[in-house]
Amino acid sequence: MSSHTAQSDVTVIGLGPMGRALAGAFLGAGLRITVWNRTPGRDGELVARGAAVAPSPEAAVAASPLTVVCVVNYDASDAVLRREPVAAALKGRTLVNLTADTPDRARDTARWADEHGVRYLDGAIMTPTPTIGTPHAVLLFSGPADLHAEHAPVLETLGGSHTHLGEDPGRAAAYDVALLDIFWTAMAGWAHALAVAGAEGVTPGELAPFAQGIAAILPPLFEETAADVADGTFSGEGNPLTSAVSSMAHIVHTSEAHGIDAGVMRAAEGMARRAVGLGHGADGFVRIAEVIGRR
Amino acid sequence: MSSHTAQSDVTVIGLGPMGRALAGAFLGAGLRITVWNRTPGRDGELVARGAAVAPSPEAAVAASPLTVVCVVNYDASDAVLRREPVAAALKGRTLVNLTADTPDRARDTARWADEHGVRYLDGAIMTPTPTIGTPHAVLLFSGPADLHAEHAPVLETLGGSHTHLGEDPGRAAAYDVALLDIFWTAMAGWAHALAVAGAEGVTPGELAPFAQGIAAILPPLFEETAADVADGTFSGEGNPLTSAVSSMAHIVHTSEAHGIDAGVMRAAEGMARRAVGLGHGADGFVRIAEVIGRR
Repeated sequence: MSSHTAQSDVTVIGLGPMGRALAGAFLGAGLRITVWNRTPGRDGELVARGAAVAPSPEAAVAASPLTVVCVVNYDASDAVLRREPVAAALKGRTLVNLTADTPDRARDTARWADEHGVRYLDGAIMTPTPTIGTPHAVLLFSGPADLHAEHAPVLETLGGSHTHLGEDPGRAAAYDVALLDIFWTAMAGWAHALAVAGAEGVTPGELAPFAQGIAAILPPLFEETAADVADGTFSGEGNPLTSAVSSMAHIVHTSEAHGIDAGVMRAAEGMARRAVGLGHGADGFVRIAEVIGRR
Repeated sequence: MSSHTAQSDVTVIGLGPMGRALAGAFLGAGLRITVWNRTPGRDGELVARGAAVAPSPEAAVAASPLTVVCVVNYDASDAVLRREPVAAALKGRTLVNLTADTPDRARDTARWADEHGVRYLDGAIMTPTPTIGTPHAVLLFSGPADLHAEHAPVLETLGGSHTHLGEDPGRAAAYDVALLDIFWTAMAGWAHALAVAGAEGVTPGELAPFAQGIAAILPPLFEETAADVADGTFSGEGNPLTSAVSSMAHIVHTSEAHGIDAGVMRAAEGMARRAVGLGHGADGFVRIAEVIGRR
């Protein structure tokens, strides 16, 4: 590290909406930053605020002891990073990859970093761009704990809550994938419900207040049913899987009667019926997690 | 109505967990009730609290000016109600069907009631049994407004918020189906996320606190995106459909790499890719509602 002359505190690679938000938060905290983006022209506002622009990825990573990467996926980050001059410039420095992808890709990148003497942390950003630099940001990290601790003062300028999840570099991505699974599945249900309601003459504005009521019952249910899965107890008292599949069939029927694709609910109903068929009809809905997770 | 001699204020048909909760709330409010259930032996606690037990459905409905039915579905309520002696005993009286099923079945039952001189309200109970008789119950009604107003004093003893949604008897079921669509789809996502997290070595207890964070961002998103669908504007600024499908592909990949069925997410991703393929890639996720709802 001492052999490098740092011109800035942190380098940001990737200037999409999230990358620009990260760079802006670092600048807002008074840090000196260097930026690079594959497509030029995204750095105007950041340069006006004092960011240095590097002519190449290798120059960008050489400018700071810490490089933060946030691009569309690991194919994109590999295309930037996995070149000899970049690996050489990164040697002995720290790379934090906040790009979203699968746990396997994160672990594979950690192996590459290790082979090239690059100190590597993987991370996931769980909240949208406007939260960056505010108390509402949620960031997850995995990889060496001491490396996270060393860079925490800089990373924490991104705001919000930061959690180091463990040494396995894939762990942040594992949380990211699981949490986005909940999010995008729920959003698919919401979009589908809006379509079915619309076909029944119920407007989005009429449905929305009641949808808030549904959203409000999820947090306590998540808490209770997480305990059920952890304990392997799946009490369906008052709401057994057999009731769930009956509801799900009504939803499929109503949707398809209006010519609206019910593929998501058909797949969900199929998982539930599989659990019923295995003898779990009197159990609660999250028995499904145990059934589909069986090896 | 004056030709009938009512022995009780309200009759409850169906003594599953929800029917028993309804009957218990009526008793708790000091009302005289008559009950009937296809399978005997479910009425012990209610009888101990003063409920009368009718020997037949026709005797049950003849005992009160108002009958509330809550059974497993409309096949079950038809099997009880659509017999000549029951129809004759119901003539001029009010039937409130709180059984969950599709809007079509509710409308069909309203037609049958009309043909037989039965005054008919359809309803849906949106909250679980422990909420009945408490401020947390949520009940929806549809059918003649004056009939709802007439029976509101008795029905409101079930607690919570009661909404009359309009004269179309299918409307309560339409809301019910749309809201359960959100609920069961979200729960399917949660169950799947628990399975994927488990395969990655992340325990339910570790995932749950972060899942609360996901649940917390849904209410404002429901509000904003309902407005988008209503206006036909689908700004994807900061979170376009192209990003969503990228996330969804990571989820499918991670799930299937662990041998976990990803059918729900594959179907959701398919809807999203269909919208992208139609040229809506820069739009927000709920553009899907408009695309799948097209006739």
